[in-house]
Amino acid sequence: MVERLPAEARRTALAKLKGWSEVSGRDAITRTFTFRDFNEAFGFMTRAALVAEKSDHHPEWRNVYKTVEVVLATHDADGVTARDIALAEAMNKIAGG
Amino acid sequence: MVERLPAEARRTALAKLKGWSEVSGRDAITRTFTFRDFNEAFGFMTRAALVAEKSDHHPEWRNVYKTVEVVLATHDADGVTARDIALAEAMNKIAGG
Repeated sequence: MVERLPAEARRTALAKLKGWSEVSGRDAITRTFTFRDFNEAFGFMTRAALVAEKSDHHPEWRNVYKTVEVVLATHDADGVTARDIALAEAMNKIAGG
Repeated sequence: MVERLPAEARRTALAKLKGWSEVSGRDAITRTFTFRDFNEAFGFMTRAALVAEKSDHHPEWRNVYKTVEVVLATHDADGVTARDIALAEAMNKIAGG
């Protein structure tokens, strides 16, 4: 069982996570990635999907052509956990920043 | 330039498209696909992405674990065209019904 990050720990983690912010009205974090085109956007999604599946921790995400809007939260914990921070970091790395 | 389908033609096309319906308040069509797990859901998305890219006509879609919510409309035509019907048919075929 993964536990929700205390507010202080989440703030510290978010401060290091380029582009991510808290979702208003919900214990979750979000980032919208913008790529050059659909090829790049879906390439990002495919690489992130492999990471997600391997770690058995999956994003909520929406793709419209070259943008991918991601929301991360841990269903079992009903909030943001270290698993979300890890997936956010992996996504940033895949997206190149 | 692809033209918007007249209301009658869209109704006829939709009637043949299993699972699809009109989006309320917007000239677009939608279907939510539900699979067994993330592997199946993202497998569907990957196959559909190849079709979309090849025909240069892309979906708006949202994936949460085993569900994929798709919205189709043609940006250039500001509404539903034959290209959306074709992509919807291809998605149904990929999803197996």
